[in-house]
Amino acid sequence: MTVTPPEDEAIDPQAAPPAEEYGLSNEQIEQAEEALEQGDIARLEEIAASLHAADLADLIESLAPDERVVLLDTLGGAMEPEVLSYLVPAVRQEVIEHIGPKGLATVLSALESDDAVEIFEDLDEDFQRRILTQLPEGYRLVLEEGIAFPEESAGRLMQREVVAIPAAWTVGETIDFMRSAHDLPNDFYDLFVVDPKHKPQGYIPLSRVLRARRPERVSEIMESDLKTISYSTDQEEVAYLFRQYGLVSAPVVDDAGRVIGMITVDDIVHVIDEEAEDDLMKLAGVGESDLYGRVLETTKSRGTWLVVNLGTAVLASIVIGLFEATLAEVVALAVLMPIVASMGGNAGTQTLTVAVRALAMKDLSTANAMRFIVKELTVGCFNGMIFAVLTGIVAWLWFGRPDIGVIIGLAMIINMIVAGLAGTLVPLTLDRLNIDPAVASGVFLTTITDVVGFFAFLGLAALFIL
Amino acid sequence: MTVTPPEDEAIDPQAAPPAEEYGLSNEQIEQAEEALEQGDIARLEEIAASLHAADLADLIESLAPDERVVLLDTLGGAMEPEVLSYLVPAVRQEVIEHIGPKGLATVLSALESDDAVEIFEDLDEDFQRRILTQLPEGYRLVLEEGIAFPEESAGRLMQREVVAIPAAWTVGETIDFMRSAHDLPNDFYDLFVVDPKHKPQGYIPLSRVLRARRPERVSEIMESDLKTISYSTDQEEVAYLFRQYGLVSAPVVDDAGRVIGMITVDDIVHVIDEEAEDDLMKLAGVGESDLYGRVLETTKSRGTWLVVNLGTAVLASIVIGLFEATLAEVVALAVLMPIVASMGGNAGTQTLTVAVRALAMKDLSTANAMRFIVKELTVGCFNGMIFAVLTGIVAWLWFGRPDIGVIIGLAMIINMIVAGLAGTLVPLTLDRLNIDPAVASGVFLTTITDVVGFFAFLGLAALFIL
Repeated sequence: MTVTPPEDEAIDPQAAPPAEEYGLSNEQIEQAEEALEQGDIARLEEIAASLHAADLADLIESLAPDERVVLLDTLGGAMEPEVLSYLVPAVRQEVIEHIGPKGLATVLSALESDDAVEIFEDLDEDFQRRILTQLPEGYRLVLEEGIAFPEESAGRLMQREVVAIPAAWTVGETIDFMRSAHDLPNDFYDLFVVDPKHKPQGYIPLSRVLRARRPERVSEIMESDLKTISYSTDQEEVAYLFRQYGLVSAPVVDDAGRVIGMITVDDIVHVIDEEAEDDLMKLAGVGESDLYGRVLETTKSRGTWLVVNLGTAVLASIVIGLFEATLAEVVALAVLMPIVASMGGNAGTQTLTVAVRALAMKDLSTANAMRFIVKELTVGCFNGMIFAVLTGIVAWLWFGRPDIGVIIGLAMIINMIVAGLAGTLVPLTLDRLNIDPAVASGVFLTTITDVVGFFAFLGLAALFIL
Repeated sequence: MTVTPPEDEAIDPQAAPPAEEYGLSNEQIEQAEEALEQGDIARLEEIAASLHAADLADLIESLAPDERVVLLDTLGGAMEPEVLSYLVPAVRQEVIEHIGPKGLATVLSALESDDAVEIFEDLDEDFQRRILTQLPEGYRLVLEEGIAFPEESAGRLMQREVVAIPAAWTVGETIDFMRSAHDLPNDFYDLFVVDPKHKPQGYIPLSRVLRARRPERVSEIMESDLKTISYSTDQEEVAYLFRQYGLVSAPVVDDAGRVIGMITVDDIVHVIDEEAEDDLMKLAGVGESDLYGRVLETTKSRGTWLVVNLGTAVLASIVIGLFEATLAEVVALAVLMPIVASMGGNAGTQTLTVAVRALAMKDLSTANAMRFIVKELTVGCFNGMIFAVLTGIVAWLWFGRPDIGVIIGLAMIINMIVAGLAGTLVPLTLDRLNIDPAVASGVFLTTITDVVGFFAFLGLAALFIL
């Protein structure tokens, strides 16, 4: 029955109880750490047993490396195989080294194929080979085929377990088949209807199967507006497909259009998180989230980006160096010049971020790019004028020189317009060249606004003050 | 049957065809614009009819405002109600103004309750009242109750349509009920099993219902490890719950613990996108993605942040102003000083971004905060020393003065350590104070690295050079 709240006891949304918190609590972490310190194995086993696999993975992640080893030894074979797929790569690597190829082979064969491939693909080749020798023939093939698909493709993401039924079947035959079958996926939400060549013809949500009568033909109740995914499709495109049409599952097909697997929405939630994190990290100049990375790896990966930044900072300094004589004459310019560069950098970053996100979400395309550029230029002009007046007054009052006020104002307008233009054109151009706009835009942009900011301000000063 | 690829025709992942692109294509947009220009109503109707509601929404978004009006007039009542829920708020507002309260009332009553509430909540109060008078009693109540729940809460997110069945029923009774019921949700993936007081006892995935035999009791096949959501829970916490445990649907309960609605994973995908976008935009100082906002609104919302930035830039300039005498003496300092500030700002932003993301994903908590701070401090020390040597050499060679090289190197080490400390402590402190770390961290951080960068460099120079 469909539940509606009883009329006599209406909900009072104002009397909200404290909102619950899901997942691993700080108390649970502290209890586990306490049990580890005291060597209380029984208590530790009890805590671990009470946790969902995802929460146990979080517990393992939140411990120090030496505590992890103790916990893993305590759990031993009792650890659910799913825990491994919930771990972040850096910690998973540690755990795998600890349990060794034999232990890992047991874990992998207990997982669904997509989860097993996800863990397997990250191993080095030698380790992969040692795992494969431990596995039964059929399972070995699934893993070998899995990693043969392009990285971040639908082929890597899919599970091979899928329910596909012939169009000629009735609902009754379908239900009888499902009751007797032993190799169905753990979770599925749609049945895919296929022709004799295994090409998908349509799908039926399970809720519709349940509500249909046994004699009805599946071809009569199926939705024929089916979206299929080629195994080579990039995972970002797959995420777009699920998001755009609100899908819960979709079939993956081979070159001949035959069903070879299925992608479900829980994999997609993971991809969406990953892609969002990627954009955020790249814009900030972090390779990938390195929360669990070791100090030296983190230093190295962050350092790479800082070297690039040092190059652009030196470039900006060279521009300033061109005006040494002017600066020696009017020290006030040195005091004020970071303002112009900083405002341009910030305004440009605002535009850039909107553009990068819109490109990732397919909201920005050649069709509306021109409108976006014109709008950002206009916003740049408006804000340029507003902040020209503000900074002009500040500079004038501070140093008692109206000429410096006028010059900083003019430089501000120029830099804000350039910021709007660079904030749109840089990501659009990179995207057109098939370069990820998130990764490289930031450097380009701040280099442009720094160089233009210093050059405009000091150049105008050199022209008109001296 | 479970499909495995035929052995004789193995997939060759290397021969990948060009990956497909889903969603609205640029060609479709161009065709629609052409039809609009030529006033070809028939063609326009044909294009619109061929599109999924989500793609039609994208088409409407990608048109210029005046073209939108023509398209809407052409479609008239033929537009699927779902189109409205797919539109971004700014464009939806335009469409609603165009179709008026009466048209909107018709659209809302055709939608599921969660989609209707989502559109309804954004309207101004006067418009809301005019809509409510147009709706039948039952529907009016759903909308009024919906907007009474806190913003961004589970209550707003949920749909009232839910399938809850008594624990005493058999599978057969359940299936018979579902075949005859008329008010079931359009899409559902789990049945929720309730006691006589409507309190949830467990859930059964539909795939399990399908595979069960008619005489089995639902209480025997249900999963009792059910996660329920209070209507007042924040949507970010709900998203965490779905993500952590891979849920496809979950029941929402009132204060007495009775089922009052259901949240499904497609709503959650939307929330995850929204929250990720929020963090990205806030870190860049953009209120919310304003791709479709009008020029004046965008100028205003971006300007607010730029005013804050102007304040912090002036603060940095004041610090520089303290050393005017030093700068007048050695102009090289003015040339080099932005390098120290820029490197600190970038290193700090890296740390900050990792922290903000980890806090949002609940990967960073009091349990591991100390380890994170120590790690970032160490990374800051290492990178500080590396870049101290690099910039020191650059400065020495450039100006032929080893003393300036040493001073810039020392300032670099100080600023990089401060950047690591500020990049961790600022977001952690804001989070502890229940302030969203994404929105305010950036300003604090760059202010700190600018001020410390300029002060350390110029201060050391004033001490040791003059």
